[in-house]
Amino acid sequence: VEQHHEEISYPECLRLLATHRFGRLGVVVEGVPLVFPMHYVLDDSHIVLRTNSGSKYACAPMTHVSFEIDEVDAGNQSGWSVLVQGPAEDVSTSIDPRSEHHRSLEFENWAHPPADRWLAIVPRQITGRRVTTAASS
Amino acid sequence: VEQHHEEISYPECLRLLATHRFGRLGVVVEGVPLVFPMHYVLDDSHIVLRTNSGSKYACAPMTHVSFEIDEVDAGNQSGWSVLVQGPAEDVSTSIDPRSEHHRSLEFENWAHPPADRWLAIVPRQITGRRVTTAASS
Repeated sequence: VEQHHEEISYPECLRLLATHRFGRLGVVVEGVPLVFPMHYVLDDSHIVLRTNSGSKYACAPMTHVSFEIDEVDAGNQSGWSVLVQGPAEDVSTSIDPRSEHHRSLEFENWAHPPADRWLAIVPRQITGRRVTTAASS
Repeated sequence: VEQHHEEISYPECLRLLATHRFGRLGVVVEGVPLVFPMHYVLDDSHIVLRTNSGSKYACAPMTHVSFEIDEVDAGNQSGWSVLVQGPAEDVSTSIDPRSEHHRSLEFENWAHPPADRWLAIVPRQITGRRVTTAASS
C-alpha cells in the first residue's frame, strides 16, 4: 500500500465544517490542554458552540482555542481532519447582529446541565489534511 | 426524548482505550491548545504514539498533554468519550523495559514523513462520560 498526503484547501475546509455538526474543542484548563467532544454549527466561518456556565470549557472565553473535526476510514486506511484556531468569545448576551444570529441557530445540544451560554470561535487559521491509501496492484 | 448522563468507571475507560486505536492528542503549540488526530496503542495504561521529529507534536515531550477518544451515534443521540491527562515522555531511545516494550508494538501509522519517534503519555487522570437518549413513549 502507498499513502498519499495532501493539504485540504481553505474552501474545502469550510465545506467540510459546514456539512458536519460534531467536533472537538481544544482548550487549556488549569494549565493542561484538554479535548472536549462537542456539537457545533458553522455560522459565517465562525464555530458556534453551546455550553453551560458550570462546565470546564467555561474557561474558553477570551483565550485562544482550537476546534477539530475528522473522519477516518480504518478499512481503507484513509481519513481527513480540519483544525480551526482562534480566540473564543462569549456571545451569550452581546447584542450585535452576528451574536444574535449565532443564538438563533438550531443546535444539537447534549450538555448537562442544559446549556445556557454560547461561544463563538473566530477563526484566525483553518487548515486541513487528507490521507488516502492506494492498494498496490 | 430524555437524555441520561453518566460517568464511565475507570476499568471501563481502560477497556474502551484498549479496544480502540484512533484518538486525538491535545497539546500546546506556541501557546495555543491544538488537537491532532492520531493512532495510538494502549500499553499497560500508557498511551503510546508514534510521530516524527519534524512534526508539531514534537512539542509534546515533558509537557502535560491530553488524549481523547470518542464515539457518537447521531441517529440515537448517544455517545461516549474518554479523556486521558498526563505528561508525555519521549521514549524513542530510553532503554528501560517499559520503553522497549512500547517500541515493540504494532502500529497503525499514517505519519508523514514516516515516524521515527515514540511518545508515551503517563496517565495521571482518566475520565469518561456517556450520554444515552431514551425515546419518549
